[in-house]
Amino acid sequence: MNAPFESRSNASRSAVLASLSLEEKASLTSGADFWNTKAIPGAGVRSMLLTDGPHGVRRQAEGDDHVGLHASVPATCFPPAVALGSTWDPELLARIGKALGTEAKAGGVSVLLGPGINIKRSPLGGRNFEYVSEDPVLTGELGTALVNGIQSQGVGASLKHFAVNNQESDRLRVSADVDPRPLREIYLRGFQKVVTAAQPWTVMCSYNRINGVYASEDPWLLSEVLRGEWGFTGLVVSDWGAVNDRVKGLSAGMDLEMPASGGITDAQIVDAVKNGTLDEAVLDTAVARVLDLADRTATVRAASDGGASFDVDAHHALAREAAGRSIVLLKNEDGFLPLDPSSTGTIAVIGEYARTPRYQGGGSSLVNPTRLENALDAISSLSAAEVVFAPGYVPGEDTPDTALISAAADAARGAGTVVLFLGSELESEGYDRTGIGLPAAHRALLDAVLDANPATAVVLSNGGVVGTDGWDHRVPALLEGWLLGQAGGPATADVLFGLANPSGRLAETIPHRLQDTPAYLDFPGEHSHVRYGEGLFVGYRHYDSRDLDVAYPFGHGLSYTTFAYANPALAADDGGITVRVDVTNTGTRAGHEVVQAYTSVPGSAFVRPRRELKGFAVVHLEPGQSTTAGIRLERADLTVWHPVQGRWVLEGGEYTVEVGASSRDIRQTATIRLDGDDLTAPLTRDSTLIEWLDHPAGGPVLSRILQDSATAGNQLAAMLNEPEGRALIGSFPLGRLAAFPGSPLTPATIDELTARIDE
Amino acid sequence: MNAPFESRSNASRSAVLASLSLEEKASLTSGADFWNTKAIPGAGVRSMLLTDGPHGVRRQAEGDDHVGLHASVPATCFPPAVALGSTWDPELLARIGKALGTEAKAGGVSVLLGPGINIKRSPLGGRNFEYVSEDPVLTGELGTALVNGIQSQGVGASLKHFAVNNQESDRLRVSADVDPRPLREIYLRGFQKVVTAAQPWTVMCSYNRINGVYASEDPWLLSEVLRGEWGFTGLVVSDWGAVNDRVKGLSAGMDLEMPASGGITDAQIVDAVKNGTLDEAVLDTAVARVLDLADRTATVRAASDGGASFDVDAHHALAREAAGRSIVLLKNEDGFLPLDPSSTGTIAVIGEYARTPRYQGGGSSLVNPTRLENALDAISSLSAAEVVFAPGYVPGEDTPDTALISAAADAARGAGTVVLFLGSELESEGYDRTGIGLPAAHRALLDAVLDANPATAVVLSNGGVVGTDGWDHRVPALLEGWLLGQAGGPATADVLFGLANPSGRLAETIPHRLQDTPAYLDFPGEHSHVRYGEGLFVGYRHYDSRDLDVAYPFGHGLSYTTFAYANPALAADDGGITVRVDVTNTGTRAGHEVVQAYTSVPGSAFVRPRRELKGFAVVHLEPGQSTTAGIRLERADLTVWHPVQGRWVLEGGEYTVEVGASSRDIRQTATIRLDGDDLTAPLTRDSTLIEWLDHPAGGPVLSRILQDSATAGNQLAAMLNEPEGRALIGSFPLGRLAAFPGSPLTPATIDELTARIDE
Repeated sequence: MNAPFESRSNASRSAVLASLSLEEKASLTSGADFWNTKAIPGAGVRSMLLTDGPHGVRRQAEGDDHVGLHASVPATCFPPAVALGSTWDPELLARIGKALGTEAKAGGVSVLLGPGINIKRSPLGGRNFEYVSEDPVLTGELGTALVNGIQSQGVGASLKHFAVNNQESDRLRVSADVDPRPLREIYLRGFQKVVTAAQPWTVMCSYNRINGVYASEDPWLLSEVLRGEWGFTGLVVSDWGAVNDRVKGLSAGMDLEMPASGGITDAQIVDAVKNGTLDEAVLDTAVARVLDLADRTATVRAASDGGASFDVDAHHALAREAAGRSIVLLKNEDGFLPLDPSSTGTIAVIGEYARTPRYQGGGSSLVNPTRLENALDAISSLSAAEVVFAPGYVPGEDTPDTALISAAADAARGAGTVVLFLGSELESEGYDRTGIGLPAAHRALLDAVLDANPATAVVLSNGGVVGTDGWDHRVPALLEGWLLGQAGGPATADVLFGLANPSGRLAETIPHRLQDTPAYLDFPGEHSHVRYGEGLFVGYRHYDSRDLDVAYPFGHGLSYTTFAYANPALAADDGGITVRVDVTNTGTRAGHEVVQAYTSVPGSAFVRPRRELKGFAVVHLEPGQSTTAGIRLERADLTVWHPVQGRWVLEGGEYTVEVGASSRDIRQTATIRLDGDDLTAPLTRDSTLIEWLDHPAGGPVLSRILQDSATAGNQLAAMLNEPEGRALIGSFPLGRLAAFPGSPLTPATIDELTARIDE
Repeated sequence: MNAPFESRSNASRSAVLASLSLEEKASLTSGADFWNTKAIPGAGVRSMLLTDGPHGVRRQAEGDDHVGLHASVPATCFPPAVALGSTWDPELLARIGKALGTEAKAGGVSVLLGPGINIKRSPLGGRNFEYVSEDPVLTGELGTALVNGIQSQGVGASLKHFAVNNQESDRLRVSADVDPRPLREIYLRGFQKVVTAAQPWTVMCSYNRINGVYASEDPWLLSEVLRGEWGFTGLVVSDWGAVNDRVKGLSAGMDLEMPASGGITDAQIVDAVKNGTLDEAVLDTAVARVLDLADRTATVRAASDGGASFDVDAHHALAREAAGRSIVLLKNEDGFLPLDPSSTGTIAVIGEYARTPRYQGGGSSLVNPTRLENALDAISSLSAAEVVFAPGYVPGEDTPDTALISAAADAARGAGTVVLFLGSELESEGYDRTGIGLPAAHRALLDAVLDANPATAVVLSNGGVVGTDGWDHRVPALLEGWLLGQAGGPATADVLFGLANPSGRLAETIPHRLQDTPAYLDFPGEHSHVRYGEGLFVGYRHYDSRDLDVAYPFGHGLSYTTFAYANPALAADDGGITVRVDVTNTGTRAGHEVVQAYTSVPGSAFVRPRRELKGFAVVHLEPGQSTTAGIRLERADLTVWHPVQGRWVLEGGEYTVEVGASSRDIRQTATIRLDGDDLTAPLTRDSTLIEWLDHPAGGPVLSRILQDSATAGNQLAAMLNEPEGRALIGSFPLGRLAAFPGSPLTPATIDELTARIDE
C-alpha cells in the first residue's frame, strides 16, 4: 500500500521558494543539528526530526548527546532485520512497520531511518544483523512491507543504505567495484522493488563509493537510476557524514545533508550558485523536496503535539509474536523438540544469554527497550519441571572460564534435559567480523555440556551467521534465534515448549566453512577498493551453482509438523508467471509453511545461477488441512540486465520453476515457455562467421557466396565443412576474414551484405 | 642468454627508410601472403618467413594451402608446452629451443611463432596444451629458456599471445576484464620475465580485448608497458587476423600485420599519413623494426640457401628425453611401478592410444613429425613378457564399444599386469572444452579392465587436465603422460620399466571437480566479456587460499626414489632472496628432484594468496648423494603491483619461505626480514581518524588537539576512549569529522595540520 502523497500545490510551493533567499534555501539542504532539519518560521517551513531505526525508534532525549551511543527514549525493540528476514512474511512485517510508524509519530519523529536492505555479501559483514537477506527478491518484498507499514502512519521511511554498502571495513571510502549485472540484479534489485512498489519518502545514500564514485555524489545512481528509471519522487538524505563534496552531491541529486555542517557546506552552495558553477534551479529542486517531505509528514508534529502515544503492551506482544516467527529450527532429531511443559524432573538452562539476552546489535540502531524479558524466566514459568541455571560464560570474555564451565557441566549432568544458550559476541555497525566460529568460551562450554548430557537443545543468539561445523552433529536440536528484540526470551520459550510452532526459514545460507563463502578471497578488499569478483553468485547462488555442500541451505527451517506439496501449475501472462501448488499439513500441529519458487532457464544465453528465488508464499494450515498456495513471479524479477545493451530484458524460452521448502529441498518442478524480448543484435562486420551463418536472413545469403567460391576451390568453404576447421574459423568476425588472403569476402562485399540484410 | 642484436647502423637504416616511398613503407608493415613478409629488392629489403611453432616447425610446403590444416614439411614434433612445463627444467628447455631454432634455420624460417606462455586460467581452456602453467614464475622461467634456445640459432622467437588470451570461446572479440593486480601479477608477469630476461625478437599480440581494448591496438599494452616499462626492442606482430583497425594498431605499436591484407590496410595507412591523422614517423618506426628483424635473422636465409639441415636422429632422441622428463607419476601404490623388464608372464597393453599415440593437439601448432613411435612397440621390445594388445576404444568415438571393451577385459583377465592407455579426445585451438571427465568410452573401458584385473597401471594422454575423481582410488599406479610429441611412446615405456625415473611435476593443479575450479562460474563469460572475478586466485593460489582439497596439487609428482630436505637457509640482498637447502636422495635409484620455494607475507597490507611460487631448482642425485640446492627468488618476483599507486612495490617485513615438493608438501620453512619500499601515503583530509592517530608525526599533534577539546567535554575524544566508539568513528576521514556538530576540527584546522605534518 502506498501512503498518499499529499503535496503542497505547485503554486504554493513556488511562492514559498520565491520568498526564500539564496542563503535560506541553501540552509534548508543541511541539518540544524544532529537529528533535526532547519526551520524557517517566517516562511512557514518547520523542522523535521529524523531518527534511527530501523527496528525501533531511537530518539535521543532532549539535551542528550548527539552521537547516540547513550540511552535514548524507551521504545519497543522489535527483532532486528536479521530475524524479521527469517519470517519471510510481508503481512507480519507490515504490522511491525505500522507499529514503528505509530511509535515514531508519538515521538514527533518525521522520518524513521530504515529499513536497511543491503545484501549480505559475506557473513562477516558487521552490519548484517540490520539487513534482511542474501537474496534481493526476499529483501525487496520484506522491505516493501516495512515501508508501507511505517508510512501508513504518516511517517517517512528512509530506505538505506543506497547502495552497495555491504561491509563496514573502510566504509567511508571503500569503492565497491561491481559489474553491471550483479549491480543491477543483486545489489540494486531490492531497492528497485521497494522504490517502485512502496515509494519511500526518503532514500538514504550510503558512505561508500560504487565503481569509484561516492554514492553521495553519483548522478547516475541518485538521478538517472533512482528517479529516472525507477520514478522515485521523494528526497535523498545523506548517511550521517556521507557528504564528500556538497556541491557535487547536490547536483547529483543528494538533497539533504545530515547532520549539520556548521554552515560550511551551505556557504559552498551559495558560492557555487553565485559563481555560476551550480544552477540555482538544482538547489530549488532540492529545497522543494525538503518542503514536500515536511508536507508529507505534517501530521507527525500535530500528533506529537497532541500527546499521541502508543500501546506499549500491544507492541511488546507484537514483538513477541515476531520473535517467535523469526526463530529457525535448524535441526530436530527424533522430535527432541518441543519439550513437554507438563514434564516434571529437571531442566538445566545454561548460558548467560538465557538470563541476559543478546537481543540486538550495536551502533546507530541500538534501541532502549520499553521492557526486556529473558528466556530463563519464561522457561521457569512455562515448565512444570525444576529449572536450574548456570551461566557458563561471561558475555564479552572469549577465554573459557573453567569454573563456570565446570558448574554448568554439573548442572547438565543432573538434569533430564538441557537447554544451552550460545551465540556470537557483540556485533556492531562500524566494524566487520573476522570469523564465524563460536567464541572459544562458548565452544568449550558446549563440549563440556554435551559430554555431561547429550540431551541438549542449543539456542543460538547472533546477528551474523555462526558456523555449526564440528559440533552440530552432537546436538539433537538446534534453534537459530538470531537477535530477537525485547521479547525474544518468552518467544524462545514458546518455541521450545511448542506453544509456538517454529516457522522461520533461513534468509541466508549457513556454510560449512568461512573459506567456502563466495567473497572469502576479496572481503573486505584492500586499499579502499573491494572487487565483487563473485559477480551474481552471492549466497545460495554460489553454493548451488558450484554444487557445494552447506551446513544449512537458504530457505531451510524445520517445523513441528510436516507439509506435502502436490499439483504444481504454472500460468504465464504479460506480467509474469503465477505458480499454484497444493500444500497439505500432513502432521499433527498447526503451522506456517514458506513455499518457495525458484527459476532457472536451461540453455540460457546469459550466465545464470543454478536457481534463483523469484517468489514465495506463507501459508498457515491446521493439521490435515490443504490449500493451494499462489505465488506470483513478477516479470520484472524474471528479467536480466543485458550487460551490453544496458537494459532489462526478458529472455524467451523455457523456464523451469522449482517449488520447494529450501533451495536444496525442491519438492515439485514444472516448466513454462515465455515469449521474450527481441535480443538479436543486427549483423555487422563484427558478427562472426557462425553468427552470420546461423542468422535467418544472413545465413542463406552468405552460404550462397561461400558455395560459389567453393566451386572455385575456396579454402574457407572447405574449412567450414570440417568440424575442426569450422571451430577454428567460425569465431572470426566476418570483417577479419575479409582481410585474409584468398577470402571470397571483401570489406565492400560485407558492407553490401549488411545493407541487404538490414532491408 | 640473449642472442646478440646485430642491427644495421642508424645511418644505413635512415638511408633505406629515406629511399622508400610512403606506399612502400606501408606495404612493409603487412604480410606478402600467409606466411611471408614483403621484399623490396631494390632497397635491399628481403622477405622473411614466419611459421608456427611452438613445439616444432610447421612450415607449409611451397604451393600448399595457406591455412595450415594440411600436411606441412616434416619436422621433429617435440612435446607440447603442457608436457615441457612439467619438466620444470630450463636447461632442458633451452636445448629444445636450440633444436627448434636449428630446424627453423634449416627450413629458412626467420621467426618461429612461439613459445606460447598464457596462463591456464581454467582447465577448460582449449589451447592449454600449448601453454606452460597456471603459475607465472614457472611460465616465465621456462619461456625464457625456450626463447634463448631458439634465438641462439639466429632465428627469432615470437612470444605469444600477448596478452590475457586464456580461452578460445569468442576469442576474436572477447574482452578479458581483469583488475590491475591479477593483470600484472598473474597474466603479464610471465611475459615481463621473458621480455626482460631474453628479449625475444618479436612479440605476437593476441586476438582478444583487454578491459575493452583490442590487444592489437592498445597503446598502453604495446607501447607503455611492453616497450616503456619492460624495454622491449623487438617487433610486435599481430596474431593471424588480429587486426581490427590497422591505423589504430600502428599508432599503438603493432608493427607488422599478418597475414597479407590484400593491400587494403596498407592503403589505409597511406591515407592516414596523407590526411594527417597518422604521423609518418610512427610508420617509419614500425618499418625500422621490420628492417631490424630482417637484419637480425639475416643468417637464416644464408643457412637455408646453403643447404643447412638438422640431425633428425639426435632431435628425435632429444624429443624422447624430454618426453620422459615430462611424464608425471601421480600415484604409485606399494611400488607398483616400475615394472621389471626381465619378468616373464603376460602384460596386457590396452587402449588404442598405446598403438596410435595421442601426442599433440590440433590447430596451428600441428606438426608433421619426422617419425612417430608408439608405446606398444616400445613395451614389446623392452619387456621379456608376452605382450598382448587390445584397443578398447576407437579414438573419436565417445560411446563405449562393448565388443572392444569385452575383448580388452578378457586380455586384462589373462595378464599378470595391465597397462591401460586412456586420455582426452582431440583438443584444439579454436574451441574450449566443456568438461574434464574421461570420455565415456574410456571410462567404461577403465571400469571393465579394473574389474577384470586390479593390477593395472593407467597412462593418460591429454592436453588439458583430466579429472581422476571416482576412479583413481582403484588404480595402483597412474602416469600423467600429457601430449608427449613424436617420441612419447618409447619415453613412456622407459618410465614404465624404470629405464627413466619419472621427474615430472604438475605445472597445474588437478582438481577434484570442475566445480571447484576458480573460474568455474565465469568461464568463458557472456556477450563478449569475461570477468576474471577470481582475481589473483588462479590455480593453486585459489585451492590453497580456500583450503580446498584437490586430487593432485600443483608441483606434485612422484619418483622411484625419495628425497629428504634439510637445513634451509635464507640470505637477502638488494636483488632478492637466496634460498639454500640440502637435498638428499634417500632411495635406491638416481633421479631428479624439483625443489620448490613458495613465499607468503604474514600480516601483509596486500591481499595475497596463501603461498606463491617464487623460485625452484632441479637437482639430479645418485642414490645416497646429497647436494645443496640454491634457489634464487628475484626481487622483481617478490614485488606486488600497488593497485592505487600504480607501481611495483616490495613490501617490507617478514617473509615466510616454504620449501617443498609441491604446494601441499612443504618440507622446510624459514623466514627472513626484507626492507621494503616506502608505501606510506601522505596524511590528508581523506585519511581516517585512526590513520592520523597511528601516524608517527600526525598522531601526537592530533591527540593533543583532541585532549584539549576533551577537557571541554568533547564528545569525539570521549568516543575514542570506548572500543565501540573507536570502531564507529575511527574509520571516518578527518575531513568528514570536521563537518560534524561539535567537532573540535574544522576544515581550516585540518589544512593547517596537514601543512604542519608535511614539513
